[in-house]
Amino acid sequence: MLTVGLFPNTKKQSISTVLGWIVQYFKERNVRVVLPEDAALELKCSHLAGKLECVKNDITFGITLGGDGTLLNTAREIAPFGIPVCGVNMGNLGFLTEIELPDLSSALDRLVRGDYYIEERLMLDAVVIRKGSPIYISPALNDIVVAKGGFSRMIKLKLFIDEELTAEYPADGLIIATSTGSTGYSLSSGGPIVNPKLKVIVITPICPHTLHSRALVISEKEEIKVRMQATHDDIVLTVDGQTVYNLLPDDTVVVRRSPFRARFIRFTGKSYYETLRTKLRRGDRDGNC
Amino acid sequence: MLTVGLFPNTKKQSISTVLGWIVQYFKERNVRVVLPEDAALELKCSHLAGKLECVKNDITFGITLGGDGTLLNTAREIAPFGIPVCGVNMGNLGFLTEIELPDLSSALDRLVRGDYYIEERLMLDAVVIRKGSPIYISPALNDIVVAKGGFSRMIKLKLFIDEELTAEYPADGLIIATSTGSTGYSLSSGGPIVNPKLKVIVITPICPHTLHSRALVISEKEEIKVRMQATHDDIVLTVDGQTVYNLLPDDTVVVRRSPFRARFIRFTGKSYYETLRTKLRRGDRDGNC
Amino acid sequence: MLTVGLFPNTKKQSISTVLGWIVQYFKERNVRVVLPEDAALELKCSHLAGKLECVKNDITFGITLGGDGTLLNTAREIAPFGIPVCGVNMGNLGFLTEIELPDLSSALDRLVRGDYYIEERLMLDAVVIRKGSPIYISPALNDIVVAKGGFSRMIKLKLFIDEELTAEYPADGLIIATSTGSTGYSLSSGGPIVNPKLKVIVITPICPHTLHSRALVISEKEEIKVRMQATHDDIVLTVDGQTVYNLLPDDTVVVRRSPFRARFIRFTGKSYYETLRTKLRRGDRDGNC
Amino acid sequence: MLTVGLFPNTKKQSISTVLGWIVQYFKERNVRVVLPEDAALELKCSHLAGKLECVKNDITFGITLGGDGTLLNTAREIAPFGIPVCGVNMGNLGFLTEIELPDLSSALDRLVRGDYYIEERLMLDAVVIRKGSPIYISPALNDIVVAKGGFSRMIKLKLFIDEELTAEYPADGLIIATSTGSTGYSLSSGGPIVNPKLKVIVITPICPHTLHSRALVISEKEEIKVRMQATHDDIVLTVDGQTVYNLLPDDTVVVRRSPFRARFIRFTGKSYYETLRTKLRRGDRDGNC
Repeated sequence: MLTVGLFPNTKKQSISTVLGWIVQYFKERNVRVVLPEDAALELKCSHLAGKLECVKNDITFGITLGGDGTLLNTAREIAPFGIPVCGVNMGNLGFLTEIELPDLSSALDRLVRGDYYIEERLMLDAVVIRKGSPIYISPALNDIVVAKGGFSRMIKLKLFIDEELTAEYPADGLIIATSTGSTGYSLSSGGPIVNPKLKVIVITPICPHTLHSRALVISEKEEIKVRMQATHDDIVLTVDGQTVYNLLPDDTVVVRRSPFRARFIRFTGKSYYETLRTKLRRGDRDGNC
Repeated sequence: MLTVGLFPNTKKQSISTVLGWIVQYFKERNVRVVLPEDAALELKCSHLAGKLECVKNDITFGITLGGDGTLLNTAREIAPFGIPVCGVNMGNLGFLTEIELPDLSSALDRLVRGDYYIEERLMLDAVVIRKGSPIYISPALNDIVVAKGGFSRMIKLKLFIDEELTAEYPADGLIIATSTGSTGYSLSSGGPIVNPKLKVIVITPICPHTLHSRALVISEKEEIKVRMQATHDDIVLTVDGQTVYNLLPDDTVVVRRSPFRARFIRFTGKSYYETLRTKLRRGDRDGNC
Repeated sequence: MLTVGLFPNTKKQSISTVLGWIVQYFKERNVRVVLPEDAALELKCSHLAGKLECVKNDITFGITLGGDGTLLNTAREIAPFGIPVCGVNMGNLGFLTEIELPDLSSALDRLVRGDYYIEERLMLDAVVIRKGSPIYISPALNDIVVAKGGFSRMIKLKLFIDEELTAEYPADGLIIATSTGSTGYSLSSGGPIVNPKLKVIVITPICPHTLHSRALVISEKEEIKVRMQATHDDIVLTVDGQTVYNLLPDDTVVVRRSPFRARFIRFTGKSYYETLRTKLRRGDRDGNC
Repeated sequence: MLTVGLFPNTKKQSISTVLGWIVQYFKERNVRVVLPEDAALELKCSHLAGKLECVKNDITFGITLGGDGTLLNTAREIAPFGIPVCGVNMGNLGFLTEIELPDLSSALDRLVRGDYYIEERLMLDAVVIRKGSPIYISPALNDIVVAKGGFSRMIKLKLFIDEELTAEYPADGLIIATSTGSTGYSLSSGGPIVNPKLKVIVITPICPHTLHSRALVISEKEEIKVRMQATHDDIVLTVDGQTVYNLLPDDTVVVRRSPFRARFIRFTGKSYYETLRTKLRRGDRDGNC
């Protein structure tokens, strides 16, 4: 028996309507549906609530209702359990979401039939090392940013790749992005656009004071270490756009390939390069590709 | 009778020795010397202390002892009184300071003889408008930066020039620099190098998410307004590299030509373009040109 | 008695119709109309033909019919005679042309009444020096480009400003642009956008191999010299987008302020910054601002 | 029995001395040595001359004497025969050459012992299609450039990846580089630095007029097509820095992975990232990494 995990962004307009429709769709087909507890509570369907830890082995695939952000967060959360996920777009132009509302019914048919393929995306782990011990770890699907806070002028960062000193940056910060994240913050800082199928890492300095500094593309197998010069205490670690940690001057941030991959469900319909062209023509980088 | 204001960076090594030497030099030539009260106290020559407000009309010129930072701060402070200033370089490569220590004696001779010329540099005023009233004002010799703090991902800024909406930037921030400041933070963000004699303003976005955004060079006579979109409350105003103000979402930052000019004493010896070439070869932008 | 010089781009569709309409308009108002000989011949109105040298002192103002290119060429040609010029836009988005076809009648009324103002724009002169003698001179309103031809990989250029060596560029070439031309080729090569009212010069390297090279903004009063390294013989001088000269390895290109200014007729209607914003949103640089 | 192919740059100073020394070294060890016919003739050792077609199956490895250019050209030439190659550096800072002259003796010992490993590098093939038929093909180890010649202002290029229109560039040209070539011309045009072990392709526009255009990193498995707009006839195809072909307006340039890999002999001594750091500090991109 199929089990579907639904991950709604409860802030979106009409979310109840769409959710109700989907729940009904699956009910008629004898497919079990579970929701995270808090979302189930908020959307008044607590009979469908399930703790992720309890149901993780049952879930065949996840469906997110929202924008690219909802999909990113969910994908990162369920990656360790190998659960693939598909996004229903309820926002503006979605780059990662696969299903538009008008196609919802036929898309669900395909999901139930198993008529889809899985696209795996590289994930990274950011580990903060303080006094020799790892004190914080976070997975990233887009990017890991080490940057000055608002009150310092610049920071000095040393970049090590596979234990070798590769560059020293007096800069505002450093972005370490996956291919998926290459069209995000990294692009604003002068980084290249990378086909998301490539398992590579992009390292892009933010406002480097050494004018010759450029973006660097390296293998997913290489281990990155970022060390900060000792006199600053206003350095912030941001993962996938959410600030998570205040760094201390002697901290080291280690970035390496996550043992998990994000698994996106695809129907082949939407082309990466067509999406990119639209995006480039619009001239912005608000979403992912 | 000549009066010289001495402005030492009390943190610099050998500052007492150099200061003592200069004081003695002027004493022998019947030139009056004054120091800011706190520096005089710290360097144990409180008999030379003078409140700037009291002595401002007496001072013929100022001499700073330190690096470009000391000179910048002093120049900004005494600009309203029309006092010219000259820097003795006690740090690394100084771009604004005119006198190297080995040339100190002959340089002081020229100062006493009046054998120098004045180079005026544009200054800007940053005014923060909150609920219709100016609540903060600061002069700037290098740059005025409106940027996100460490905890937000990006901010949306609207740029008005002479009351006309010129650009909207989803970005990390916006740098408004003088020609003097063009070789500083603005350069790291992709701005051009501007001959400091030009009385123009450079506006450079920091990591703009709209990829087509570019640096803008406008007249010193144009008035700039920067407005922030309402939902952010982690925006910081930085003037000449020192954070001075936390902005609120509905604040407006107005930037306009200062009524005062910084007045640097020059001996013609040092060429701007030669300094620039050295700087470019070194590939950094740590100082000003 | 008013005399109007008409400068049509004979390649544009409907040019005869519009020209006929304008000729008739002026005839009814007793305004004399002259056309360049070749255009008059081609458009079958040779009774209106006048040699520029003969009629230059009679012409009150010129009107171009075409796009920005037609206006640029005409402005450059008649600048030495101090004749102001106004463009009727018969192409796509025109940045320099002032009159749109639907407003033609009222615009001509204003021209006849003298109800307009003149905006002066900086022009440059490119002079090629070979074996100590000037062998070629050309005025430029947009830009002067010294660049490699198609068969060499890169060239080495030395830039002198007021006789002082300022930079050495191993590069594809060097662009020397006016403010007017700053939104053209220079922008594609990373140069800043400059308010066209500013009388400054922008120097932008094309694909510099020294990664720290940046655009430089200098005063219109400074004299620029570009010298090429001796082993190349595939170097091309381009002025305002038209290749005009094959340079030899020991040639020097001198660029200095033209004694003449281009004089554009303006009605205040169209704002530079609004045009710029449109342009930026479109994300291209096909025209001038 | 070992056979070594020697590929000297006959233009280098002291080439005869070094070549003589190496020939003697191998003679004493019973290793057969062959040289290309023209080089053998020029260096007066025609008894060692061998046609590459005849000896290709005998050669164990090649040794180049010269700079990175000599190594690049040789590697490209012998790649189809699977022959690995090692460079003796006789120029300035060599990025690809593995052997410095002072280490020549011990390096040759290692080569004879087989004490080395092979680093494979991606190669591309450029194919020109005219009227439906391939009329020119060239392998590339660094980059394939489609660019305007000296007499046109810009060209319009359409980029197709795997038959899909990905971008349209009004630009000076387009660079398609391997990882090896990423530190060359592509870097000057704003492209990223790519670890040469990665089998990826970098596509970088040259002076794009659409300001949002950025470098693109794609998989080596994707096929690239570049089509030109019809009205230009001054378009040049350059492969690895040497102009090879004048393109016609309706030509298509197809770029795909070469069936061959360049095979460089390595001794582990020299680190890529250390070389890169030196290079970055020097701030130029004259060689490859």
